[in-house]
Amino acid sequence: MSDLAANDALHMARALELARKGVYSTHPNPRVGCVLVRDGETVGEGWHVQAGGPHAEVHALRQAGDRARGATAYVTLEPCSHHGRTPPCADALVEAGVARVVVAMQDPNPQVAGKGLERLRQAGIAVTCPLLATEARALNPGFLKRMEQGRPYVRVKLAMSLDGRTAMASGESQWITGPAARSAVQRLRAQSSAVLTGADSVIADGARMTVRATELGLDAETTELATRRVPLRILIDGRLRVPLDAPFFQAGPALVVTCADPAAHLQYARDGHELLSLPGEDGRVDLPQLSIELARRGINELLVEAGASLAGAFARQGLVDEYQIFIAAKFMGSTARPLLDWPLARMSEAAPLQIIEMTAVGEDWRVIAVPAAPFAPPPATAPAKRV
Amino acid sequence: MSDLAANDALHMARALELARKGVYSTHPNPRVGCVLVRDGETVGEGWHVQAGGPHAEVHALRQAGDRARGATAYVTLEPCSHHGRTPPCADALVEAGVARVVVAMQDPNPQVAGKGLERLRQAGIAVTCPLLATEARALNPGFLKRMEQGRPYVRVKLAMSLDGRTAMASGESQWITGPAARSAVQRLRAQSSAVLTGADSVIADGARMTVRATELGLDAETTELATRRVPLRILIDGRLRVPLDAPFFQAGPALVVTCADPAAHLQYARDGHELLSLPGEDGRVDLPQLSIELARRGINELLVEAGASLAGAFARQGLVDEYQIFIAAKFMGSTARPLLDWPLARMSEAAPLQIIEMTAVGEDWRVIAVPAAPFAPPPATAPAKRV
Repeated sequence: MSDLAANDALHMARALELARKGVYSTHPNPRVGCVLVRDGETVGEGWHVQAGGPHAEVHALRQAGDRARGATAYVTLEPCSHHGRTPPCADALVEAGVARVVVAMQDPNPQVAGKGLERLRQAGIAVTCPLLATEARALNPGFLKRMEQGRPYVRVKLAMSLDGRTAMASGESQWITGPAARSAVQRLRAQSSAVLTGADSVIADGARMTVRATELGLDAETTELATRRVPLRILIDGRLRVPLDAPFFQAGPALVVTCADPAAHLQYARDGHELLSLPGEDGRVDLPQLSIELARRGINELLVEAGASLAGAFARQGLVDEYQIFIAAKFMGSTARPLLDWPLARMSEAAPLQIIEMTAVGEDWRVIAVPAAPFAPPPATAPAKRV
Repeated sequence: MSDLAANDALHMARALELARKGVYSTHPNPRVGCVLVRDGETVGEGWHVQAGGPHAEVHALRQAGDRARGATAYVTLEPCSHHGRTPPCADALVEAGVARVVVAMQDPNPQVAGKGLERLRQAGIAVTCPLLATEARALNPGFLKRMEQGRPYVRVKLAMSLDGRTAMASGESQWITGPAARSAVQRLRAQSSAVLTGADSVIADGARMTVRATELGLDAETTELATRRVPLRILIDGRLRVPLDAPFFQAGPALVVTCADPAAHLQYARDGHELLSLPGEDGRVDLPQLSIELARRGINELLVEAGASLAGAFARQGLVDEYQIFIAAKFMGSTARPLLDWPLARMSEAAPLQIIEMTAVGEDWRVIAVPAAPFAPPPATAPAKRV
């Protein structure tokens, strides 16, 4: 690697680190970081904090002041070229007189999509892109999936015993995992655009699906960031079984998705909630349609915390991007409830996964797994015919 | 830590490392290592290779020759004081003129049990014991449990999907895990005194429970050691359902444990197998009694590789010392078979475990867990009475 390439990677790694600071607060915007370097010296750093506030580039340019002239800017996502709630960052970089811009990845947002890079090039700025694009993509799985596929990135959180059980046959399930795992789940909620659960969980456990500052296990500054924004709370309640005086509804406004007649919507609206009717063909809520609707509303990352039935429905319909499974060091036995309601008959139907990470979380363990492509035998090729 | 103590720990760590070389071959003897050090220089090293052969101390003394005089011996287990198949090692150390002996732990074998240390002290040798005893105990869980409790150390190997399933409802189960995990299981077999399975596994999978040199994944020298001795193969076959022409019986002599009338024993003996009738009160094989019988026969480490029913029976009866669970990155679904047949009704009955290790093994993961003491509230103490 040349010295230039090594330095570029170093500065981009720092920009990625800055971007990560926005993990809890940028929704519906992406997390972006920026570093300005002149003559080997860092003259400005910035990261996007929250929608409506300045973009990462603007923070860095303000810090650098005159020293931005002739500098190289490292940005984790293509600078925007359109007037949104703030003016275009590409223009700001041009005006500041930066000499070179290194961009981790192009922005798939159709309002940008290469136009930012083009604006820079037209102004005579040297542009390098991509650099550490894999790392940059990992910052914004939800934003990117929404832009590229019109759906949110769906993370399913499950808590199970080592023998794969989530509740006793009676439904008893509270406190399978310990405080460190619960704290990790709080952080997952805080970074999500929306959290989703089902009527069974709300009725059985009195779940409220809130983010509780004291349980995040974060320092004061990050806790403040993580609680500035409240994730949208979504309840799947096909037959409207959860009463409006349940703790879930008392905890703040919610989106209720149902198969039932939407005539009740006024009653929900009076209490500050929204009722959305999305009946599917099987008499249950149409989850694929919901997914599209949530993306339309700007939901990047959706956290599903539900029982085997609803979580299984997401899994069976291929809607899950990532499983976060918290495993408690205990056996709950063979009559306890399964991880996911997902009947499969043959080994060849088994859903292949890729385990990304397995780490200790307090006294429990966390497995992060993503669906993997099923095994497909190579196509049989007919021997070439000789004529 | 003083220099002396630091050096002692260093040399004992080396002796432990040597002892580990005997992991596959010392049955029914313990794994033992020995280092002889004079004036800071290692003058002899040895480890016990196999029963009937020289003990670790003798190997080290032979290597040291005259340089053993005045040396310090580091031994991972108390030197023996009795005439077994070889003469007492304590005497050999005395005769060689060693000045000091550092022993990791006392030997619980009633034929030794402090007499070896006493013999050394009587000869005017300085004795230090224990040192790194926890590490020394970990070398020989089976030998120690057999000596201390009259039972083998029972390791249960299980292979499951991430959702805790071991077979489809149909029984289909082969190749849940990949080649690296299967290789690890081969090594577990090779280090065990005996491997045990049930009639269902033998009938359904054609299991032979053999150690296959090519699948061990070990270097040539260690493979030779690991295959010098064949673990006793044990079949639990309550109703003698497995025919004598099954691959399991063709693979070599076996011990068959049954509830059936032992009249068939001649037929088994003719083919080189032993039939043992141990009916329990519930009409199944009496596993606690079998455990005692196996220890009596010198079985240190017993590996159980069985389906949910037999493995569950070991678990339910509190006979398991360690679970080795190989986890494949897939979901097998909610109708697939459970990990262990172990019906539990309440969370308070859940069997607590301690997870010792979680590591990647090829494309799969291995969890090592041991039963943990269940949570017990501290006893309520009555306030002290003032009189």
